[in-house]
Amino acid sequence: MNAPTLTNVRQAEERVRLVGHRTPVMTSAQLDELAGRHLVFKCENFQKIGAFKIRGAANFIFKLSDEVARRGVVTHSSGNHGQAVALASRLRGIQAHIVMPTTASAVKRRAIEGYGGIVVDCAPNEAARDATAQGVIDETGATFVPPYDHPDIIAGQATAALELLEDLPELEAVVAPVGGGGLLSGTAIASHGLHGTIRVFGAEPEGADDAARSLAEGRLIPQDDPQTIADGLLTSLGPLTYSIISEQVERVVTVSEGEIVSAMRLVWERMKIVIEPSAAVAVAAVLSEEFRALEDLQHVGVILSGGNVDLDDLPW
Amino acid sequence: MNAPTLTNVRQAEERVRLVGHRTPVMTSAQLDELAGRHLVFKCENFQKIGAFKIRGAANFIFKLSDEVARRGVVTHSSGNHGQAVALASRLRGIQAHIVMPTTASAVKRRAIEGYGGIVVDCAPNEAARDATAQGVIDETGATFVPPYDHPDIIAGQATAALELLEDLPELEAVVAPVGGGGLLSGTAIASHGLHGTIRVFGAEPEGADDAARSLAEGRLIPQDDPQTIADGLLTSLGPLTYSIISEQVERVVTVSEGEIVSAMRLVWERMKIVIEPSAAVAVAAVLSEEFRALEDLQHVGVILSGGNVDLDDLPW
Repeated sequence: MNAPTLTNVRQAEERVRLVGHRTPVMTSAQLDELAGRHLVFKCENFQKIGAFKIRGAANFIFKLSDEVARRGVVTHSSGNHGQAVALASRLRGIQAHIVMPTTASAVKRRAIEGYGGIVVDCAPNEAARDATAQGVIDETGATFVPPYDHPDIIAGQATAALELLEDLPELEAVVAPVGGGGLLSGTAIASHGLHGTIRVFGAEPEGADDAARSLAEGRLIPQDDPQTIADGLLTSLGPLTYSIISEQVERVVTVSEGEIVSAMRLVWERMKIVIEPSAAVAVAAVLSEEFRALEDLQHVGVILSGGNVDLDDLPW
Repeated sequence: MNAPTLTNVRQAEERVRLVGHRTPVMTSAQLDELAGRHLVFKCENFQKIGAFKIRGAANFIFKLSDEVARRGVVTHSSGNHGQAVALASRLRGIQAHIVMPTTASAVKRRAIEGYGGIVVDCAPNEAARDATAQGVIDETGATFVPPYDHPDIIAGQATAALELLEDLPELEAVVAPVGGGGLLSGTAIASHGLHGTIRVFGAEPEGADDAARSLAEGRLIPQDDPQTIADGLLTSLGPLTYSIISEQVERVVTVSEGEIVSAMRLVWERMKIVIEPSAAVAVAAVLSEEFRALEDLQHVGVILSGGNVDLDDLPW
């Protein structure tokens, strides 16, 4: 599989528009002061399903031929990707099967069903998950929608940075959180496609730092037993996202769990918006000493990846 | 004292612009569905100091003559009004004395001091509060900044509705929460000034329903022992706000504590924005059966009055 190009991202933008919002940006004088520079936040927490994931799912699903799409799609994710696939499928008028472990919460199950997805139970382990998804494919001919390591998913996620830089061409750097790397690799492609000299940074929890370690060692090192509150960033880079990130991302800044919680709370209190821990990772990164020490960066874009949190289980 | 006119509100808008934000509006397909009509939310939670109160304080303080302003201002409020007076004063370059009971939290004290206000302690009762404020006036010649029952405060608060209706002239009704009535009376003046036929509604907690009872009985009935989570709405209407509201507000919808908490949580979860309980009162009102039963209302504006909450003490 090849990395998507800026042209692919522009095509993705047209598909994303059928399903998602063009999200607003926000600024905060208080956060600027703490960061030591001007920050612009791309608010994917205001996106449909509450996270950027709808972009990749929309691009993938609306790009399928009618003949293929008719047989439906399948994925395994009890989180934002599952909801995104369910909603994009409903809007395309096709069936989405979402494989979920029997241990997933009732809330997540209802969210999928609320978007019209069919929840398919599996035992809570990877082998059962993959076998169950394969069973759906064998039975229905459904297409598997990968969570991140696919050019069409990456091109979709890239549309967030594309919009951000269309709105604010003066940005000198963009920061995005990194889990599987779909958002970060897409951000790099869109950013460099529009502005060759822009700097792109990843933000990652110390407890799930496979991207930082992979870049440091020059080879893909999958995460072993990730531990972080940022539950959207537990996954490891794939071959395609690693390849793009290793070429196009200047640095991956890692942050501690304490920094993530502080940044999340800071954004809620000062900006009055709800962001999820995975989004707070990017905020924590731009507030870190490591990032503050970078020179010649006056205008930095930060992608707030989503806002789906359990209000009954807040980390403070 | 006379009610302010639309001209006063337009003059206030110029002063408010020196200090506050022109806040954005937001919409939510999910809230529309629950309300049975299209809602537009005016986001004063994104306002400076996190609430609409900066508007009235800015208008009052920037309208003072240089000679009067030089002697400073004083008010008593440990909440949003106190912060608003402190910030507007700092921006005008004058001293603000904020009388606060010794029982007020350290957080509220630090917020005032963070905006450059001087906290003046008093015993936690109304007599001590008034005597302390009068002591500051006697000593410094400072001007008292009333929290709501004054034409300049009302004209300032009115600028939120003015902006809302400038952005969305198609609105057929506007809903605002009511405590002392500064926001609601200003909303009525701006709304009717721009559109004679627009309908204006108040939203009030059942546990602090002096405005609803005053309208029902045709005379000002102050609140006795208010009990509500909506701590911005504990105060009673004043003579001026009562007079405006009784003439210009069609109805005050009351909501229960349970409805307030549900509406607050709904907005956090679905819209991903942080609003305070007082703001949730207006949301609860438009979701109430009473309001849903109103006919011929397709487009309704809702003023989200603020977003200052203690994240360590959430009501769920």
